Amino acid sequence: MSTPRATKVTPLSGFPEYLPEQRIVEQHFIDVIRSTFELHGFPSIETRAVEPVERLLGKGGDADKEIYGIHRLAAEDEGGAAGGSREGDLGLHFDLTVPFARYVVENAGRLSFPFRRHQIQKVWRGERPQEGRYREFTQCDIDVVDTGELAPHFEAEMPLVMAEIFAKLPIPPMVIQVNNRKIPEGFYRGLGIDDVAGTLRVVDKLDKIGPDKVAAQLVEAGRTPEQAQAVLDLASIRTQDTSFVEQVRTLGVEHPVLDEGLAALAAVIETGAAAAPGAMVADLRIARGLDYYTGTVYETQLIGHESWGSFCSGGRYDELASDGKNTYPGVGISIGLSRLLGLLLGKGLVGASRKTPSAVLVAVTDEGSRPASVAAATALRARGIPCEVAPVAAKFGKQIRFAERRGIPYVWFPGATEGGGDQVKDIRSGEQVDADAATWQCPAEDLRPQVVALT
Amino acid sequence: MSTPRATKVTPLSGFPEYLPEQRIVEQHFIDVIRSTFELHGFPSIETRAVEPVERLLGKGGDADKEIYGIHRLAAEDEGGAAGGSREGDLGLHFDLTVPFARYVVENAGRLSFPFRRHQIQKVWRGERPQEGRYREFTQCDIDVVDTGELAPHFEAEMPLVMAEIFAKLPIPPMVIQVNNRKIPEGFYRGLGIDDVAGTLRVVDKLDKIGPDKVAAQLVEAGRTPEQAQAVLDLASIRTQDTSFVEQVRTLGVEHPVLDEGLAALAAVIETGAAAAPGAMVADLRIARGLDYYTGTVYETQLIGHESWGSFCSGGRYDELASDGKNTYPGVGISIGLSRLLGLLLGKGLVGASRKTPSAVLVAVTDEGSRPASVAAATALRARGIPCEVAPVAAKFGKQIRFAERRGIPYVWFPGATEGGGDQVKDIRSGEQVDADAATWQCPAEDLRPQVVALT
Repeated sequence: MSTPRATKVTPLSGFPEYLPEQRIVEQHFIDVIRSTFELHGFPSIETRAVEPVERLLGKGGDADKEIYGIHRLAAEDEGGAAGGSREGDLGLHFDLTVPFARYVVENAGRLSFPFRRHQIQKVWRGERPQEGRYREFTQCDIDVVDTGELAPHFEAEMPLVMAEIFAKLPIPPMVIQVNNRKIPEGFYRGLGIDDVAGTLRVVDKLDKIGPDKVAAQLVEAGRTPEQAQAVLDLASIRTQDTSFVEQVRTLGVEHPVLDEGLAALAAVIETGAAAAPGAMVADLRIARGLDYYTGTVYETQLIGHESWGSFCSGGRYDELASDGKNTYPGVGISIGLSRLLGLLLGKGLVGASRKTPSAVLVAVTDEGSRPASVAAATALRARGIPCEVAPVAAKFGKQIRFAERRGIPYVWFPGATEGGGDQVKDIRSGEQVDADAATWQCPAEDLRPQVVALT
Repeated sequence: MSTPRATKVTPLSGFPEYLPEQRIVEQHFIDVIRSTFELHGFPSIETRAVEPVERLLGKGGDADKEIYGIHRLAAEDEGGAAGGSREGDLGLHFDLTVPFARYVVENAGRLSFPFRRHQIQKVWRGERPQEGRYREFTQCDIDVVDTGELAPHFEAEMPLVMAEIFAKLPIPPMVIQVNNRKIPEGFYRGLGIDDVAGTLRVVDKLDKIGPDKVAAQLVEAGRTPEQAQAVLDLASIRTQDTSFVEQVRTLGVEHPVLDEGLAALAAVIETGAAAAPGAMVADLRIARGLDYYTGTVYETQLIGHESWGSFCSGGRYDELASDGKNTYPGVGISIGLSRLLGLLLGKGLVGASRKTPSAVLVAVTDEGSRPASVAAATALRARGIPCEVAPVAAKFGKQIRFAERRGIPYVWFPGATEGGGDQVKDIRSGEQVDADAATWQCPAEDLRPQVVALT
């Protein structure tokens, strides 16, 4: 609560806000994501919005371009120093992995390992806003971490959770692209290429610049035309089953790290094909720019909207965190919810059936009988039917239009029958029938706003 | 996702974080609050975390002591100016009312009035942390706003929504204290006291300094001893029904504004007594410090923990916002969730029955048969039963202890019978029975973690 104010209002670029009917879509997505995470035994945690800037910068030191620091306004007045006290230099988190790693180390003695958790929170980045890229946005992460060693079967489990979520959401079909960093690494080494990271960085540009330019850049960087061609051949392999192994073998390159990678990816794809046919592909082009992935990596394409990029990415890292005593390897995957919703809502591809949770508007005959309307609403709510009472005892036509504007499907009329009984009208069909607030069944599909794909 | 890092971890005072089992309690509270808000037809909105500092400071200009400004770290390097670019001076919101008022004005053309909404979000204040007072905390608000005029029946509706929530939560009984600002205003004017605000400010100290000191301060401020006594007499009135009207009349003070206030409060209390007996009291001492309340005001006491202060407060304001053309009156009430939970969890008064959503741990006989365990888990999840597969094919005793440590009530054994059928063990009773993952019914009370009052 604070004082009212009359200054002019300004939307802030990169800080999206939704109307109630759009927020209903977002809540539906979050509800599906959370309940599926919970079905798979991932408890929720939330971390504070701020971390020490030092921790946010991390080893790389590169992330600082995106970080929002915070400062107490009052400290400027008190301290006199320009910029004021920086609260030991705190900043807003820019992802959920850095805070999660800190949380694991901080609470290691009170958590049971392997520790699985989900986390659905806002993060902030000071980047230049553009379509589908925001300064404030919501991420939905799952990770499993262990101490010392992490069993490889978790690498197959992660994308299956996501595939289940995508199948439940009113969105175009998604495909999860899976690779294993050891495949390109072993393959390149087998080819005699030592600069694995540099080669991966060039291959990562395939979508943007195409194979010819990638080949040219590889040759420029000192690879032979034959090496460049082999690198492109590997990147072109994409299979729904484990036949990628045979296709790689046909390229005639040998290396023990390659063998390890092929076996690991085959295990993930085999589990995936059994549990969710068609949801995953082995795609040997997927590299993920981030250096710290050490095994399986994931990206995701929305079929028909491949140019929108990946909405769900992650991978395996041998060292999520370390506290001197223990090292914590992990595997995680994250949905970029705001990116996905921003595009779907922006293109009108998804929508809600109404603007309010209310399934019923209880009409008010006259202000004197408002208590009867409140009593009917109370009886409906007691049985889980969301409703509200009309704000004014206006003419019934006006009260019906009030419901119509919000998409509320039913209007309830207390004491509408000659005998003083209630009636309920489905305002879509116009059908009005006798009803009792203590027993009336609201059709299941009308109980909550429906969130559906639009085309 | 970001790079791993190994720097030391430090809890931050005023930024509380929960363990998974505590977060389950918080989620349960939020779920009950949200679903009850929705039952009463309040759709959700979320507003961005930041507002222009100018808007946060508002007319009063007093709030700045608490505001966190944000700044892009990168701007410091780029701009050179100490403190860097302040992004047009943005700050983190310190409540949900200021952003809601801005949202209403910004979207007025796209909202239907009277507009009701709920909002459950984190807010930030740079205050000195203490027990139950944080720098990052969650508020749960409902408000109704209209253009021009707001019907008074909404003032009776707000506390009833909260009473329903309190009744559903595993907490000590709560009582909502209601007053109407017009009662003290009219009463003071009828007594010949013109400085209404100054008198209210002194009366507001009753809980802290007691009636004798309040009387002394009133006399010091120029009131007669008789006026001071009458002011104290009014503040001492507290009734569950509308008998407060008669008690005020007995004091013999007359004023038209007093009549208005008494009638308004009587209507709220009458509605409350009918719908939720015992949940509300008329308490004529409640003043609410904030100047902008103009009618009904609410505070809340947790019975047996009155010293903890109010967890749920609000009131009616004639001008929530204004955009030059329109003025938006509103009424709202807000739960201070972090304060409430911080104290309940801190005192061990509430807890969850387990640390994970998983109701079942599916055991793994040996790594070769992991697919059978995954298949059983998939079948259980398909019917809404949260479960996870054991991380290692350890001895069954060890797998059972894994479940025990997390409070998971059931362990599932695929292929445990001679015929190759599955069995399930309730590890609390030790009872193990034949079961089929396609049909087994998980008892409803075990499906989700239970959140219960502890004593």
